[in-house]
Amino acid sequence: MYFVDTTSASEIQKPGAYLLGIGYDGSTSYRPGTRFAPEYIRLASNNLESYSPYLDKDLHDYSIFDLGDLPTYPTRFDLIQQEFSNLTQHISLVNQQVKLLTVGGEHSISYMPIKKYLEEYPELTILHLDAHADLREEYLGNPHSHACIIRRITEHMGEGHQLIQYGIRSGTKEEFQWMRQHKTRMHSLNECLNNLIELSCSTPVYLTLDLDFFDPSELPGTGTPEAGGESFHSFVKILKILNSKNLVGADVTELSPPIDPSGNSNCFAAKIVRELLLALS
Amino acid sequence: MYFVDTTSASEIQKPGAYLLGIGYDGSTSYRPGTRFAPEYIRLASNNLESYSPYLDKDLHDYSIFDLGDLPTYPTRFDLIQQEFSNLTQHISLVNQQVKLLTVGGEHSISYMPIKKYLEEYPELTILHLDAHADLREEYLGNPHSHACIIRRITEHMGEGHQLIQYGIRSGTKEEFQWMRQHKTRMHSLNECLNNLIELSCSTPVYLTLDLDFFDPSELPGTGTPEAGGESFHSFVKILKILNSKNLVGADVTELSPPIDPSGNSNCFAAKIVRELLLALS
Amino acid sequence: MYFVDTTSASEIQKPGAYLLGIGYDGSTSYRPGTRFAPEYIRLASNNLESYSPYLDKDLHDYSIFDLGDLPTYPTRFDLIQQEFSNLTQHISLVNQQVKLLTVGGEHSISYMPIKKYLEEYPELTILHLDAHADLREEYLGNPHSHACIIRRITEHMGEGHQLIQYGIRSGTKEEFQWMRQHKTRMHSLNECLNNLIELSCSTPVYLTLDLDFFDPSELPGTGTPEAGGESFHSFVKILKILNSKNLVGADVTELSPPIDPSGNSNCFAAKIVRELLLALS
Amino acid sequence: MYFVDTTSASEIQKPGAYLLGIGYDGSTSYRPGTRFAPEYIRLASNNLESYSPYLDKDLHDYSIFDLGDLPTYPTRFDLIQQEFSNLTQHISLVNQQVKLLTVGGEHSISYMPIKKYLEEYPELTILHLDAHADLREEYLGNPHSHACIIRRITEHMGEGHQLIQYGIRSGTKEEFQWMRQHKTRMHSLNECLNNLIELSCSTPVYLTLDLDFFDPSELPGTGTPEAGGESFHSFVKILKILNSKNLVGADVTELSPPIDPSGNSNCFAAKIVRELLLALS
Amino acid sequence: MYFVDTTSASEIQKPGAYLLGIGYDGSTSYRPGTRFAPEYIRLASNNLESYSPYLDKDLHDYSIFDLGDLPTYPTRFDLIQQEFSNLTQHISLVNQQVKLLTVGGEHSISYMPIKKYLEEYPELTILHLDAHADLREEYLGNPHSHACIIRRITEHMGEGHQLIQYGIRSGTKEEFQWMRQHKTRMHSLNECLNNLIELSCSTPVYLTLDLDFFDPSELPGTGTPEAGGESFHSFVKILKILNSKNLVGADVTELSPPIDPSGNSNCFAAKIVRELLLALS
Amino acid sequence: MYFVDTTSASEIQKPGAYLLGIGYDGSTSYRPGTRFAPEYIRLASNNLESYSPYLDKDLHDYSIFDLGDLPTYPTRFDLIQQEFSNLTQHISLVNQQVKLLTVGGEHSISYMPIKKYLEEYPELTILHLDAHADLREEYLGNPHSHACIIRRITEHMGEGHQLIQYGIRSGTKEEFQWMRQHKTRMHSLNECLNNLIELSCSTPVYLTLDLDFFDPSELPGTGTPEAGGESFHSFVKILKILNSKNLVGADVTELSPPIDPSGNSNCFAAKIVRELLLALS
Repeated sequence: MYFVDTTSASEIQKPGAYLLGIGYDGSTSYRPGTRFAPEYIRLASNNLESYSPYLDKDLHDYSIFDLGDLPTYPTRFDLIQQEFSNLTQHISLVNQQVKLLTVGGEHSISYMPIKKYLEEYPELTILHLDAHADLREEYLGNPHSHACIIRRITEHMGEGHQLIQYGIRSGTKEEFQWMRQHKTRMHSLNECLNNLIELSCSTPVYLTLDLDFFDPSELPGTGTPEAGGESFHSFVKILKILNSKNLVGADVTELSPPIDPSGNSNCFAAKIVRELLLALS
Repeated sequence: MYFVDTTSASEIQKPGAYLLGIGYDGSTSYRPGTRFAPEYIRLASNNLESYSPYLDKDLHDYSIFDLGDLPTYPTRFDLIQQEFSNLTQHISLVNQQVKLLTVGGEHSISYMPIKKYLEEYPELTILHLDAHADLREEYLGNPHSHACIIRRITEHMGEGHQLIQYGIRSGTKEEFQWMRQHKTRMHSLNECLNNLIELSCSTPVYLTLDLDFFDPSELPGTGTPEAGGESFHSFVKILKILNSKNLVGADVTELSPPIDPSGNSNCFAAKIVRELLLALS
Repeated sequence: MYFVDTTSASEIQKPGAYLLGIGYDGSTSYRPGTRFAPEYIRLASNNLESYSPYLDKDLHDYSIFDLGDLPTYPTRFDLIQQEFSNLTQHISLVNQQVKLLTVGGEHSISYMPIKKYLEEYPELTILHLDAHADLREEYLGNPHSHACIIRRITEHMGEGHQLIQYGIRSGTKEEFQWMRQHKTRMHSLNECLNNLIELSCSTPVYLTLDLDFFDPSELPGTGTPEAGGESFHSFVKILKILNSKNLVGADVTELSPPIDPSGNSNCFAAKIVRELLLALS
Repeated sequence: MYFVDTTSASEIQKPGAYLLGIGYDGSTSYRPGTRFAPEYIRLASNNLESYSPYLDKDLHDYSIFDLGDLPTYPTRFDLIQQEFSNLTQHISLVNQQVKLLTVGGEHSISYMPIKKYLEEYPELTILHLDAHADLREEYLGNPHSHACIIRRITEHMGEGHQLIQYGIRSGTKEEFQWMRQHKTRMHSLNECLNNLIELSCSTPVYLTLDLDFFDPSELPGTGTPEAGGESFHSFVKILKILNSKNLVGADVTELSPPIDPSGNSNCFAAKIVRELLLALS
Repeated sequence: MYFVDTTSASEIQKPGAYLLGIGYDGSTSYRPGTRFAPEYIRLASNNLESYSPYLDKDLHDYSIFDLGDLPTYPTRFDLIQQEFSNLTQHISLVNQQVKLLTVGGEHSISYMPIKKYLEEYPELTILHLDAHADLREEYLGNPHSHACIIRRITEHMGEGHQLIQYGIRSGTKEEFQWMRQHKTRMHSLNECLNNLIELSCSTPVYLTLDLDFFDPSELPGTGTPEAGGESFHSFVKILKILNSKNLVGADVTELSPPIDPSGNSNCFAAKIVRELLLALS
Repeated sequence: MYFVDTTSASEIQKPGAYLLGIGYDGSTSYRPGTRFAPEYIRLASNNLESYSPYLDKDLHDYSIFDLGDLPTYPTRFDLIQQEFSNLTQHISLVNQQVKLLTVGGEHSISYMPIKKYLEEYPELTILHLDAHADLREEYLGNPHSHACIIRRITEHMGEGHQLIQYGIRSGTKEEFQWMRQHKTRMHSLNECLNNLIELSCSTPVYLTLDLDFFDPSELPGTGTPEAGGESFHSFVKILKILNSKNLVGADVTELSPPIDPSGNSNCFAAKIVRELLLALS
């Protein structure tokens, strides 16, 4: 009900939270997986109340816009980057008080908004919730594979930028060594929560959420499920802290609607999107 | 195995626990959802032992009867109410020591048994386990929508009647305000358990269980899944207390077999039904 | 791709073909069946070319508008009729050269457009393609059940109106007697085609298509499948004749997306909708 | 609706058609496949009219009984044979005008009724509709595998017994040689129909129908699908001839409900059962 | 059973038919669609007899080798081409009497074997069975999209090369014009069969089969289903002619196992592969 | 990725961990359930890293062999026992430092490896993780049913052998009495962990893991799901202790791939297999 209620926007102008879909996931022209996520999340949002009892906020009380979906090109990541650039290059997220919630597609799409945020915010804490480290140099011949996204991002990070990773339970020996060396990986929910609590209320935070962060029991509809994941209850704890800090942007990726025939994963993701739109507002 | 072993009954006569299906869920004449719940729960019960290790009780040791299913009329809630009335109007649940376990169908069907219980029991604690508050005045033009069932019931509650709600995590701002005002909502499992423990052993308790109370990971087969739900483990704690108190009736609603192609939700619901039949005995 | 390309319209004004969704199918507020048909047909239309090799026509060459979906109320058919009336009462289909393609929902929704067409067109041939006769007086207490829709329509038919039924292979003994008596049932594709060919080119024709007309192998996603149905190849033969006659309106009902997990039924229905939009143009 | 309307019977007494389920399909105690066929066919029968437009007969006009299901033992075919024997040994099918419609389970269960029929009827034409020849001497160490059922039956056939096989499109080179040698295989529908037409009206006929006879597009829910199968339309042609001859018994096997998540295969099989009950009456 | 029986081969050496899998279908690293086809076809082949009653041939009587699957790189078609080149560049298909059966993956993979065949065979008839024309110049920024494969191939065709297309029922207006202009499209099965019959027995023929050629009812498991397709029965007619001519190579593409939860599409494709291996032998 | 990397072995020779599939699950020759587990686990292993962050070990650093699958005979458990005996009778697990990881199939297949281990190891602790007690004397006429496997094993246990059961939440009253009497059932994770911690580091331990030990939310793909199960997180705690003790053998049974259409259960089971191969190494 509520995404429909939000104003449809064809470009970014007023201050507020903006939903943008980027359903990129590869070269088959119909019916793989994560490309359908934006559409199915909007569809599932009809089943949701506009009110969140977790944050005691209602979508109707805030400025929230839906930009629709970016055109995608299955084998041309360069063209998608161009589309994203066309949409955002003349915008100052900081000055115009614009907050983006980008919905994938694969995790690789996070590269575009995060690069923009890193350029604009000299200080930024990136909270990376994921089952996988995504720190490979390259994967199957592609440096922009979803297995490399965080590694790509670290190449754009400067001194004022910080990376916090939580939920990681899969990777190569080398990726785990990298995380140990750079002390980016939180080993428990408490460690993660404490790091967030210690942030000053003005430090901008960006959340990049690969939905396989969650246990596959709670979110079956994702392409690379990893047993032993996190719960929605844990996410709510993180969310409440983010809501009290300075969350400036977020993305939600890797929902793959066809994998979960019950459709429950779409409902789960839509609820996450509602909460993040509220936490951004 | 065990529901088949229970005596089929065409009417209510002897003392004991009675299973009654009311597969009402709307106007398409074939293959929506919750209308199939009674049949699929019986089918899945073939996979269950008659013995519960949680309660250390066996179905074979008690008087349990299966009344089969009430005729339903997709768009005529009035006719279903008439059918229920025909079945129960000459029965005194209290004097005849009859305990009903009604299986939906939508949550809206709970209206019928609860109204009967409220009429017969001047004192009654209604325990409402659900993801949704179900406290709307009206929904999509229908005051008997499953989004309004608890509101409808409160209209029949008198001074000796008490409402306890647990698991609620979805509703409008107004519904949450109502619950705050009337102090019906338990905020944690412990608060819920303590309220039940404090009941005297003679206070009659009625349980109305919307299965979306459970986390959709454990029970995917329901129409309006809400992430962040309760576990079977938590339910067992509630169950054990109910078993030691004076549970006089119960209903189990909102199982939608077609939504979960694994069929596991049917097995889950059948196990709940087994436990409740035992707790009622 | 093409439904998106058609102009979205909030009301009926210009001459042309208008797509209107009425996702009515009963009282559960989420996830039964046919209510999702309009949304899934639009979604599946992304997989379709705008060009039809059957009719050698392209959607881009015609005036086609999408009115979106009518609000629906699960248990209040009266309110939906009111909504339909609000949309259409000030329109003259004949004078304004407006052609409606209504997409259900259940077959019961066809009552609204057909009543309008019968009122406006003193002469009208109604072609009813279906597996079921839909000629019951009443079904489960509801005279507006989808099992009664054609019977309801016959009550509005006058002297200049004609009913042709084809594909019927299920019904009560009484319904088959009715069809024999009124000679409405075609016994073979050839009989059906010949009746259509004999129509003068000016006689207006309305097509009411219950998708279970097709064999369940070709269209599995429908609620009351009946083996022994018709093929898309046969439909194309009917379509080509309709395209050369004066087709003035149509409806497509009873697609139930959740029943077919492959999603192919949605693609099938979207293709039917493309062809009918072209035949109406 | 109609199987429920038929009288439930606990034993065979009066003349009439008797439905008997034998859900045997192997050693896992829950949720393989064909063992669920009898239950799902009964469930799906609620969606069917009692009237057949193909035969112009109505179930309500005949004596039809439902014997329920035989107890089965996953690894003990000997025990199931014993159960069948207990049920039927004191019955004379011929003298008591009893006609059995046995519903599997695997095709191997046909062994039991056919053996009984061969013993009672010195003249009998067995019509075998199947995708597979089922003529192996032994399969994976088991002479009672469903790949051997027809071979087993031929060992009980005497001079007055005849075997007609149609639909066969899979087998070993040896099985096809056997069929050529014994001239049992019909190569076209016309050859099959002509053979049946030539039967005198008094010759008793038994139909053993493995549902994979049908094309997997029409009946997806079977364990060993073979492309290039027969249609329901063809079956109706055979059915009409059988209805005009002396059909004395039949079995329907190899429906595997879990393979077809749409449930349409159950509806298809229920319709076949309706037609055969009518043709036997 | 039989693919396992065929000798596994790590390179091409002896004369015979070689099965090669190329599971290329885009950039997500796990669980889209057609990339799983080779594995699922091998798995489903366990359900098949080694004997074909259509061709009266048995796999055990011929030299058939399984090369396994080529490594694939989701976004690097260039690297896959390199892998194919490494495997085949030192082989003369003609002189060494080697016949390739390549199994996709997307239709785009056919580019590699067909280019090789066109280079080696100065005369070659390419039979293209497909629902889509695949004649676009470019699609979504990619000239090697599966919507362009036949157009790409025509660029390598010389005077002795001929293209026959059958089953085409979807494309742009321009693609249909191209086919009319080049007279490549057969309008009926008979036209197709006659063209094949007229070929001299020495003319080499290559079959490129996009499985969406078949009606989606028979093969639901494909990404871009198009209603109104061809039947297995029709394919058998084409197959028998190819078997009597000089079939020198073939490919089978666009099976997408996840789309068909019944698994029947895998069985269908495995049967096609069996028949083509036999027709090549 | 990693199971493919492990050396394929046709017999047991060198020291190391050996994976062996026994896909036995009953008498239908195609497509029930657990028989597909070994194949689907290998397939799903392609999605896994070779490195375990839980044990900080990598598969590439150990000697691990894949023996493929044992031939199975649906109704002939005796023949499968013969096959297992042929493979293992000349091997001394102890002297040759061979560790078996057997993958079912039904739990009944554990009988074969455990009998071998009991014969070779005069002292052995058997850790039984399961939802069901599996202690029946006989089930549906079969003493080798999967409901009897642990009872069968106890008949081969001597004085130095110990049985620890954890996760049991289903059984007959008699089975629970047996466990109380023999003190085999652990009532909490802590009790289980403490019992394992107290084992000396030289005591050999064998793990028999019925995957329905896990909660059906985490592992839906099993034939007899029991709500209220254990989590992967709990298993990791047990695993870490086993890894520090003397784990000498293990089996993993009752995965039923067709029951979970998402395929996630296969990924879960493959991860369990990875961890156990590492813990055995």
